[in-house]
Amino acid sequence: MANQNKTPIIDALQSSNWNREIFQSLVDSGLDAVHVTVAYWHDCRETLSAIGKWQRWFRENDDLILQVKSVADIDAAITSNRTGIVLGFQNSSSIEDDLALVETFHTLGVRIMQLTYNNQSLVGTGYCEKNDSGLTIFGRNVVSEMNRLGMIVDVSHTSEKTCMEAIEYSERPIAITHANPRSFHDVGRNKSDDLLVELAQSGGMIGFSLYPLHLAGETDCSLESFCSMVARCAELIGVNHLGLGTDLCLGWGPEQLEYMRGGTWNDPDRSSDLPPARWPQYPRWFRKNEDLHNIANGLRRTGFVEDEVSMIMGSNWYGFFREGFESR
Amino acid sequence: MANQNKTPIIDALQSSNWNREIFQSLVDSGLDAVHVTVAYWHDCRETLSAIGKWQRWFRENDDLILQVKSVADIDAAITSNRTGIVLGFQNSSSIEDDLALVETFHTLGVRIMQLTYNNQSLVGTGYCEKNDSGLTIFGRNVVSEMNRLGMIVDVSHTSEKTCMEAIEYSERPIAITHANPRSFHDVGRNKSDDLLVELAQSGGMIGFSLYPLHLAGETDCSLESFCSMVARCAELIGVNHLGLGTDLCLGWGPEQLEYMRGGTWNDPDRSSDLPPARWPQYPRWFRKNEDLHNIANGLRRTGFVEDEVSMIMGSNWYGFFREGFESR
Repeated sequence: MANQNKTPIIDALQSSNWNREIFQSLVDSGLDAVHVTVAYWHDCRETLSAIGKWQRWFRENDDLILQVKSVADIDAAITSNRTGIVLGFQNSSSIEDDLALVETFHTLGVRIMQLTYNNQSLVGTGYCEKNDSGLTIFGRNVVSEMNRLGMIVDVSHTSEKTCMEAIEYSERPIAITHANPRSFHDVGRNKSDDLLVELAQSGGMIGFSLYPLHLAGETDCSLESFCSMVARCAELIGVNHLGLGTDLCLGWGPEQLEYMRGGTWNDPDRSSDLPPARWPQYPRWFRKNEDLHNIANGLRRTGFVEDEVSMIMGSNWYGFFREGFESR
Repeated sequence: MANQNKTPIIDALQSSNWNREIFQSLVDSGLDAVHVTVAYWHDCRETLSAIGKWQRWFRENDDLILQVKSVADIDAAITSNRTGIVLGFQNSSSIEDDLALVETFHTLGVRIMQLTYNNQSLVGTGYCEKNDSGLTIFGRNVVSEMNRLGMIVDVSHTSEKTCMEAIEYSERPIAITHANPRSFHDVGRNKSDDLLVELAQSGGMIGFSLYPLHLAGETDCSLESFCSMVARCAELIGVNHLGLGTDLCLGWGPEQLEYMRGGTWNDPDRSSDLPPARWPQYPRWFRKNEDLHNIANGLRRTGFVEDEVSMIMGSNWYGFFREGFESR
């Protein structure tokens, strides 16, 4: 794995309003790799501009961050005390209806793509919809192409049937980078036990979310309650399928939330199907990257042994990325 | 209605490789209005170019054709012995994920839009998919916007549940511009009796297709068999809901069929979900616009009285367009 005997610390989802100060906080917190969101509702052209921004950030902040295209880049991040950045999409809107764009974006370094954000995409169904199309014809082509290239299929915001069909259809394990079990907090964005079992049986991973709307008690969720949920999940599907995907969103104003909820497709007069219209406050024990150690300590207190804590804090994701990013 | 005591002859769907010769054939055949396909898989930008082509055709062939934005333009076509052209989309891909583009295209004169072509769209599900999402969140916004503007909802290629939900959700009657009953020829592209009954009860219209794959016996379908189907449909839902939507496609080569089947989303190695890969031959009694009179004569021989023949040949569509194109 990496040198220096350090086990990697990896966060499988952050969506901040990035700047040098936040990059510094990643390094200061000991994060070796973070999967970041490039696109929500972006079409191809908008995504190219968003990737362009990251190209500039990588160049201007190369003392703090570097782009991760394989786990060798995470090793390099560890060696050089920087944070590796995995570019990913929270939707399949970036590829529009063009199968060829999967490879185009892979060449640009995108390594993780959600099949859907909250709504129906051309590939499958998001959790806010009342009906679930499953994986569409185009969706099956897209999953096969991602399998070939080594781009990880992410179904964090995806509806149950589409998740299930993606697990079944994909020839490689898939990921829920950021969500929690519904048995912990019963909301549409979280995942059923049935789904988690299927995910793990096929070799998949779940990253536990700290986004308050995914937590029992939301902002008031205690660290103990969160870590007990992790322990129950370890019993259900095995500790080797667990990681973090904090969904930490720093520095955004209300416009970004409005965009994330409604894109350009929403009619403000008919918003009843949308996620809540507020930025919630994170629980007091996880409000910034520097709080990550609280989670590791909480896991220890819940009874996880040190090796298990390391697995959850990053080495499971490291192994999953090692295989998942390999092209075939 | 129109002057000269002529009842209008209207074809609710043609998708030819347009040129002056075909425009001349429309006029020679007495067609007063034809709904033509501007977009299949086109995104917004591609659609603007396709509309640009029509702008040029209207300008260069203004002795033969004119754009129909309301039925007053069909009246003008009748008066001046020309053919009115209604611009329409066979998919919702043109509006991408942007609700505002419905009005943009309406302003450009688009008066009919299918919610889906063969596949899942962001709005609903096409008939080739194995699962049916129904009308999506975005789809409900789109239908409401079309209702407001006076753009007719067309569900010709759309799956059963999405059709049903569109009928239910739309505040205005909707159309199947080109398809036949499954009771006549049981293929996915044709429509169930249940759906046709719902359609008619809400004031909707069906245009009967002459595309061979929609016909019992395909190319060998007899005029008598076709007209008997029309008669059965009149018994089922009433003659005032019936029209023609011939789906006449003239002048295309195999590349266009390949595009219509697979767009840019297809993987040629995984084509099993696609419609057949051949341009079929139309039945011998309807291979060109000039054969339209054969259908009128066939309907007479099947027992339709002259008023009913006029309704099916165009005056039903005329009335439906009159109301459907009105903005609210």
